[in-house]
Amino acid sequence: MLKTAAKAGGLADRFRRVRATSAELAVGLSPEDQVVQSMPDASPVKWHLAHTTWFFETFLLSPNLPGYRPFDPAFGYLFNSYYEAVGARHPRPRRGLVTRPGVAEVAAYRDHVDAAMLTLLERGDAERLAPLVTLGLAHEEQHQELILMDLLHLFSCNPVAPAYRPYRPALRGPAHEGRWIAVDGGIVAVGHDREGGGEGFAFDNEGPRHEVLLRPFRLFSRAVTNGEWLAFVEDGGYRNPALWLSDGWATVNAEGWEAPAYWRRGEDSGWREFTLLGEHPLDEDAPVCHIGFYEADAFARWAGKRLPTEAEWETAAGTVLGSGLSPTGNTLGSGLLRPVAAARGDGLVQMFGDVWEWTASAYSGYPGFRPAAGAVGEYNGKFMANQYVLRGGCCATPDGHVRATYRNFFYPHQRWMFSGVRLAEDA
Amino acid sequence: MLKTAAKAGGLADRFRRVRATSAELAVGLSPEDQVVQSMPDASPVKWHLAHTTWFFETFLLSPNLPGYRPFDPAFGYLFNSYYEAVGARHPRPRRGLVTRPGVAEVAAYRDHVDAAMLTLLERGDAERLAPLVTLGLAHEEQHQELILMDLLHLFSCNPVAPAYRPYRPALRGPAHEGRWIAVDGGIVAVGHDREGGGEGFAFDNEGPRHEVLLRPFRLFSRAVTNGEWLAFVEDGGYRNPALWLSDGWATVNAEGWEAPAYWRRGEDSGWREFTLLGEHPLDEDAPVCHIGFYEADAFARWAGKRLPTEAEWETAAGTVLGSGLSPTGNTLGSGLLRPVAAARGDGLVQMFGDVWEWTASAYSGYPGFRPAAGAVGEYNGKFMANQYVLRGGCCATPDGHVRATYRNFFYPHQRWMFSGVRLAEDA
Amino acid sequence: MLKTAAKAGGLADRFRRVRATSAELAVGLSPEDQVVQSMPDASPVKWHLAHTTWFFETFLLSPNLPGYRPFDPAFGYLFNSYYEAVGARHPRPRRGLVTRPGVAEVAAYRDHVDAAMLTLLERGDAERLAPLVTLGLAHEEQHQELILMDLLHLFSCNPVAPAYRPYRPALRGPAHEGRWIAVDGGIVAVGHDREGGGEGFAFDNEGPRHEVLLRPFRLFSRAVTNGEWLAFVEDGGYRNPALWLSDGWATVNAEGWEAPAYWRRGEDSGWREFTLLGEHPLDEDAPVCHIGFYEADAFARWAGKRLPTEAEWETAAGTVLGSGLSPTGNTLGSGLLRPVAAARGDGLVQMFGDVWEWTASAYSGYPGFRPAAGAVGEYNGKFMANQYVLRGGCCATPDGHVRATYRNFFYPHQRWMFSGVRLAEDA
Amino acid sequence: MLKTAAKAGGLADRFRRVRATSAELAVGLSPEDQVVQSMPDASPVKWHLAHTTWFFETFLLSPNLPGYRPFDPAFGYLFNSYYEAVGARHPRPRRGLVTRPGVAEVAAYRDHVDAAMLTLLERGDAERLAPLVTLGLAHEEQHQELILMDLLHLFSCNPVAPAYRPYRPALRGPAHEGRWIAVDGGIVAVGHDREGGGEGFAFDNEGPRHEVLLRPFRLFSRAVTNGEWLAFVEDGGYRNPALWLSDGWATVNAEGWEAPAYWRRGEDSGWREFTLLGEHPLDEDAPVCHIGFYEADAFARWAGKRLPTEAEWETAAGTVLGSGLSPTGNTLGSGLLRPVAAARGDGLVQMFGDVWEWTASAYSGYPGFRPAAGAVGEYNGKFMANQYVLRGGCCATPDGHVRATYRNFFYPHQRWMFSGVRLAEDA
Repeated sequence: MLKTAAKAGGLADRFRRVRATSAELAVGLSPEDQVVQSMPDASPVKWHLAHTTWFFETFLLSPNLPGYRPFDPAFGYLFNSYYEAVGARHPRPRRGLVTRPGVAEVAAYRDHVDAAMLTLLERGDAERLAPLVTLGLAHEEQHQELILMDLLHLFSCNPVAPAYRPYRPALRGPAHEGRWIAVDGGIVAVGHDREGGGEGFAFDNEGPRHEVLLRPFRLFSRAVTNGEWLAFVEDGGYRNPALWLSDGWATVNAEGWEAPAYWRRGEDSGWREFTLLGEHPLDEDAPVCHIGFYEADAFARWAGKRLPTEAEWETAAGTVLGSGLSPTGNTLGSGLLRPVAAARGDGLVQMFGDVWEWTASAYSGYPGFRPAAGAVGEYNGKFMANQYVLRGGCCATPDGHVRATYRNFFYPHQRWMFSGVRLAEDA
Repeated sequence: MLKTAAKAGGLADRFRRVRATSAELAVGLSPEDQVVQSMPDASPVKWHLAHTTWFFETFLLSPNLPGYRPFDPAFGYLFNSYYEAVGARHPRPRRGLVTRPGVAEVAAYRDHVDAAMLTLLERGDAERLAPLVTLGLAHEEQHQELILMDLLHLFSCNPVAPAYRPYRPALRGPAHEGRWIAVDGGIVAVGHDREGGGEGFAFDNEGPRHEVLLRPFRLFSRAVTNGEWLAFVEDGGYRNPALWLSDGWATVNAEGWEAPAYWRRGEDSGWREFTLLGEHPLDEDAPVCHIGFYEADAFARWAGKRLPTEAEWETAAGTVLGSGLSPTGNTLGSGLLRPVAAARGDGLVQMFGDVWEWTASAYSGYPGFRPAAGAVGEYNGKFMANQYVLRGGCCATPDGHVRATYRNFFYPHQRWMFSGVRLAEDA
Repeated sequence: MLKTAAKAGGLADRFRRVRATSAELAVGLSPEDQVVQSMPDASPVKWHLAHTTWFFETFLLSPNLPGYRPFDPAFGYLFNSYYEAVGARHPRPRRGLVTRPGVAEVAAYRDHVDAAMLTLLERGDAERLAPLVTLGLAHEEQHQELILMDLLHLFSCNPVAPAYRPYRPALRGPAHEGRWIAVDGGIVAVGHDREGGGEGFAFDNEGPRHEVLLRPFRLFSRAVTNGEWLAFVEDGGYRNPALWLSDGWATVNAEGWEAPAYWRRGEDSGWREFTLLGEHPLDEDAPVCHIGFYEADAFARWAGKRLPTEAEWETAAGTVLGSGLSPTGNTLGSGLLRPVAAARGDGLVQMFGDVWEWTASAYSGYPGFRPAAGAVGEYNGKFMANQYVLRGGCCATPDGHVRATYRNFFYPHQRWMFSGVRLAEDA
Repeated sequence: MLKTAAKAGGLADRFRRVRATSAELAVGLSPEDQVVQSMPDASPVKWHLAHTTWFFETFLLSPNLPGYRPFDPAFGYLFNSYYEAVGARHPRPRRGLVTRPGVAEVAAYRDHVDAAMLTLLERGDAERLAPLVTLGLAHEEQHQELILMDLLHLFSCNPVAPAYRPYRPALRGPAHEGRWIAVDGGIVAVGHDREGGGEGFAFDNEGPRHEVLLRPFRLFSRAVTNGEWLAFVEDGGYRNPALWLSDGWATVNAEGWEAPAYWRRGEDSGWREFTLLGEHPLDEDAPVCHIGFYEADAFARWAGKRLPTEAEWETAAGTVLGSGLSPTGNTLGSGLLRPVAAARGDGLVQMFGDVWEWTASAYSGYPGFRPAAGAVGEYNGKFMANQYVLRGGCCATPDGHVRATYRNFFYPHQRWMFSGVRLAEDA
C-alpha cells in the first residue's frame, strides 16, 4: 500500500499540496468570516485550519520527531475534535467563542507544523509513518469539504447573502431524460480490501472487503434534478404524511420544512437557491442538493421508487469504473462550487461529484470491522449509529478524495452538506 | 393462511380470549393507576384498553357491520394512535390528560365493541375479515406487553415503590456458565413467507422472506446475566468512553446513566432492582433487563464480543425450533413477570421469552417490502429509521406472540421495555 | 386576635366546616379526575386534599398531640409542597405520577387527621394553638380555590370539554356603563395591623401596616367586561407590539396568544368560553377572566388608562367597606363558579369576588416585613420576586377568605387563575 | 435643558468625544474579538459600534439632513436593536452570525455618519435637535459599558483567558471597616425634574420627579467587599435554601452557582477572579462584583440586613452630592477597569462608580410616567417588568454618565454586568 507515496519526495509533495489547498480555501475570507460558528454541527473555518494541523502535531510530530515542541500547549485542548483518548477538549458548540488565537496565529501554527512535518518526512524512517501521514491528509481533505459546507451555512444566516466566490456559468446543457440501468444480482464483493493489498488509501470503515448477496436491480442514470424536486414540492410532497417516515414527518413539522435547505422563495413566485456563489434563480437542470435522508426517502416513495443500498451503489459504480479508471466528476477542482446538470452519456453518469447520494443503508460496521488501534481508531467506528450512508462525493470534495468504496455518513435530518439522491428500483 | 383460525368459532374464541387477557391485566389496578401517563413514550393503561378497542371499531365494525354505530363519536379522535390516514388525533404526550371517559366508560366501550365484533364474526362472510381480525388481535397483544412496560415505568416514578403483583419465587437454579454455539454460514432464507403460504400470522415487516449471505458465527447459549453486567458496572463500564458509540456516550452523560434503568443502590452498598413485583435485591442469575442498545453495544465491546445481526439470530433460532416446534419460554403465561435464570440445556436456551435481545441490525424494510394497503399499512413501515431490531420476546409478551421472524424495534436510548442482550462472535 | 374563634368550640366548628368544604369540592369527581396533573403549575385534586392534611399533621399534630402517630411516614415526603425546612419533598412537576396512595386512602388520611385534630382542639391548651390552626384553615381555603383553578385547567385539556357542575344562569342584568370614582390622595395607612391588634386573620405578607403617600386618582366602578375585551381583540390588540411590555410581547408570540386563556373560537365566527360549567358562548357582560398581567397592562395602555397600585386599590376598598362591614361579593358560596355581570350601584362594585384584579405593583415585602418564625415562615416571603399583586378575590375564593388587605400574587404570564382587571387613572 | 450643550460647537465637540471613545474601546481588539456573540444577552463589539451609529442615522440624519443617503439600506434591518416602530430587525440571538459587514466596513459606516452628523450639527436649526442628539450620545455611552461587559463575558468563555488590557495596580489601601450612615425619613422628592427644568440630561424613566414617604433608615458607608462575600460562601451561603428567594434557589441549583459569576477556584484552594485584565487572585478588599439580585438579596438576609429601596439610595446620594457637586468615582476614565477598594471617608463612599448596586425595587414607571413620543419612546418603558433597579454606576460606566437619579435595570438572575451590593437597615 502507498508504495509510491511513501517515497519521501512524493509524500512531502503531496503534503505540501494538500496543506496549500486548505489555505487557498480561506483566501478572500475575512478574519470575521473565519471565526464564527453558525450552529453546533458546524465549526469555524479557523478551527478547521487549526484542527487539521493539530492532527499532525499530535499524532505525527510529538511522538516521532525528536525535540519537537508543540507550538502552544493550550492548542491540544482547543483543537481536539472528539478524540477521547487524547484527553479533554473544548466543547464542540463553543468552538466559535474562541477568538484568540486568531486567524494570524493559526496561520503561524500551520507554518510551524508544516516546517516540522517536512523535516520529519525527510528523515530516513519516514516510510514507516506514511500510512499515518496519508490518513492525516485524507482527514484534512475531509475538513476542506467541511470548510465549504460550514461557510455556506454561515453565509446563509446573513441577511445580506454574501457570495464566497463570483458566479461562473457551467457549460453543461439542460438535464437529459435519463434512463434505468440494470445491474445483475448475485454474490458480489464490496468494500476496500486492505488486507488483500487493496490499492490506494481508504478509511478503516471501508473494509473489510466482504461478500454480499444482491438481487438484480436498476439504478437511474443520473441524480434527481431540481426540476424533478420542484414537481414533488408542487404536488404537496412536504404536506402529505403518507410519504414520510414517522421521524421524518415530525422533523418536517418541527422545522417547518417546505423545500430543500437553501431554497428561498423569490419576491415573485419563483424559487431561488442560496449557494457559495450567492443567491440565484433555481437551476432546474442541476441535481437537487441540501436534502436530508428523510426528504430523499419521501421523494423516492412519491416517485414509486426507492433508494439504493450502499452495496447496490458500490456494485453499480464498479461497473462504471472498470479496472484502473479513476473516479472523476464535478469535484472541488472544477471550481464550479455547485452541482450542475449531468453530462450526457449512455450509462451511469454523475456517480462521482456533484452531490453525495443518500442510500437506504444505515451506517454500521462491515462484518469483521475493527477500528484502527490507538486514538485514530476513534475516527469512524464510534459514529456507527443513527446515521445513513451517502456515496459518491460532491462539488466540494477534493478531487482525489472520491472512490467507489467511500462511505460518507450523516444523520437523517441533516441538510447542510451537498447531498442529493439517485433513485433505484427492483429489477 | 389462518386456515384454522378463520373458522368462525375458532376466531371468535380467540377474540374472546385475547380481549379477556387485556382486561385481566388491569385487575388490581385502581382508576388512578390506569389514567396517568408517566412519560411521552408511555401511555395510560386506560388508553391502551380503549385504543385496542378503537382498532376493531374503526377497521372492522364501521366498514363491515351494517348499522353499527360508534360508541362515542369523540373516541375516534381520542384513541387513534398514529394513523394519519384515519384523521386527526389527540397528541400522544397529552394522553394522560384525558380523565373522562374514565375506566368504567372504557370498560363499557370494550363491552359494546366486543358484542358487535362477536356478531360480526358470526356472519357468513367472517372468513374474509379473518386476516384483519387476526391483525387486530396481534395488535392487542402488543399493547398487552406495553401495558406492563408502561405500568412498570409509572410505578417506578412513585416514591412508595408499589408492586403490581405479589412476588413469587422462580424455581430455576443459579445461572449456568453457558457456552458458544457455532452456526454455519452460507446463503440462508430469513423472514416470514406470506406469499409462499407461510403458516401462522406475521406482521408485514417480517416479510418478504428473502435470502441473505451469512458468514459462520457463534452465538452464546444464554442471555447476559445481571451478575455479568455487574462486573461491567464495577469495571467502570459506564465511565469509559472508549467502550461507547459517540451518541451512546452523549446519552450516558446527559441522562446520568450508571446502571440499567431500574437498578437502584440500596441503603447498604448492594444493588436492587425495581420490578413489577416491587423492589428486590438484584438477582444476579437472571438476565440483565431494561438496557438500551447503546448499553448492549458497549457491553459487547467491553466483553470483546459483538451483537448478533437479526439474520444471525433468526437463523440460530431456526436451528432450535426445527420444524413444527412452537417457540416457548418465560413469557406472560408463566406469571413470573420478570426474567429469570435460564434453564439448563445443551444448546441455545432462553431464545424466546425472558428478555428481548438487541441485535446489531438497524430497523429497515426487507428487500421488496411493501406496507399493507390502507391505513393499517401505517403499522410498521413508517418507523423504519433510527431504531434497532430486537428479537425473541420477553416475560411480558403474550404466550402465542413470539416467533423466530418477529421483529421488535426501539430507539437505541430507550430502556423501559424488557430488553437484554445475547453475545455473538465471528467463527 | 382570633378572640372568638379561639374558644375551643368555635374553632373546632370552623375546622369541621372548612375541612368539609374541601371534601365537597371533590364530590362528582372521579378518581381519574383527581389524580392527574395537567401542567407543572397545577396539582392533582387528590394532592391538594392530602397536602392540606399534611399541614395539620406536620405543624399541629406531630409537635403538639402526645402520642400522635403519623398516618403514613411516606406522606411527609409526598405531600410537602415547598417547605425546605421540613425536609426533602417530591418534585412538584411529578405530583401527578403518584397514583398510590389513591383517592380512597387520601380520604382515610383526612379522617385520621381530622379526628386527631378534634382531639387536640378539645385539649385545655388549644387556645395557644389557635393562630396556627387558623393559618392552616386559611391555607386550606387557598387550596380550595387552587382545586377549582387546577381542575378547570385539566378539563380544558380534554377534547370532550367536561363540565364540573351543571350550568345555572345568573340573575344579573346586562353590564352597566360604569363610571370613574375619585379617591383623594395624601398619607394613608395600608396593610394589616397585626402588631396593633388588627382584627381577624391575615397572612404575614399583609403587614406590617404602614403609611404610604398617594396622589389623587380615579378607579373605575367595575371590572373590565368580556365585551370591552372583545373590542381590544378586534382592534388587533394582540398583534400590536406598541401596546405590550417587551417580555409580554415575547410571551404573546411564544405562546400564540390571541385572546384570554379559555376563549375558543366557535364553529361559526363567535367566541366561546370554557368554564367549570362547560363551554358556552362568551358572556359579554361578565368580567373578563383568565388574563395575565401582560394582557391587563396592554389593555390598559390600549384604553389610555393604567392599572391601579395595590395601595390605591386597598385605599379605595377601604372607602367601600367603611368600618365593620364585611367584604362580600360573588365568591365560592354563590355557587355560580364563574364571574358574572356586576350589580348596579353608585360607587365601586365588584371589588370583592368575581375576578382577582391585577395591580401595577410588583410583589415585595412591606417595610419592616419579617416572615413568621419557623417553617411556616416559608409561606409567603420567599415568593417575593418576579410576581405581581392581585386584589379582591374571585368566584372560586371561599366566602370568608376575602379582605381589603389580602395580597394574592402570580407571575405575569400566568392565566389559569380567575384573574381580571379594573382600570385606574390619575386624577 | 441642555442650554450649554446645544450651542452648536459644544454639542459637536461632545459628539466627537463620545464617538471617539467608542472607537478607542475597540483598540487592541482583533476583528475576531469584535464579531463573536458569546450568549443571547450579549452582542458583538462590532454590532455595538454599528448599532449606535444606526441610531444617529435613523433618528437624526434620515429625517433631518436634506439629501442624506443611508450608508447601506441593509443596515436598517441589521442594526436595529428592538425598536418595533422602525420595522423588522435581525433577531438578537443571531447578531453574531453576521460576519459581513466586517469591522472595517463598520468603521467606514461610523465615519460616514459622523461626517454627516457634524454637517447636521453645523446647521442653523441644530439646537432643535440637541435633545435627540444628547439622547443618542447617552445611548452610545450605555453601549460603551455594554461593550466592556460583553467582551468580558466573551473572554471568560475562552480557555486561554485573554486579557483586554494589561493589569495596573490600584493605589488604594485595604478595605476599611465602614459604618452605618443614618438618613432621616419623611416626605422626599425623587427622580429627575424634566418638567421643572431639571439640569442636565436624564432618561425618560428617571422622571417625573415625585414625592415618596420614607421611613428613617441606615445605609452602609461602602459596598460589600469580596472578603465579606467570601465569608458568605464559606458559611455555606450557596447551599442554604433558607437564605434565598424561591426563584433564586431554583436558579442556584439550575445554574450550579457557588460563587459570583467570574470567580474561579485556583489550582490550590484559593479563589481567583477573571477580569478585563485577565485572571488574578481574588482581591478581598475590592467590592464584590458580578452578582445577581438573587445573590444580593440572599447575602443581605444572611447578614441580617436588607437591600435599600431605590428611593432610599437616591435620597442618601443626594446628601452626598449636596448642591452642584458632580458625582464622581471609579468610572471608565480611571482606566482601572475593575472595582477597587473604597477610599476612606467619613460618610458614604463609593456611591458612584466601582459597581452598580442592586436595590430592593422592582423596575417600574414612576407615577405619571409617560414614554417619550415616537420610536425612541421604546427606550426604557417597555422593559418595566421582571427587572430590578440598580443605582450608582460602575468601573465601566463613562465618566459623565452617572447621576443620582439614574435607573439601571437587569433581570434578577443576570450577572455579566459590573453589579454589587450595599446593605441597608431600618433605623
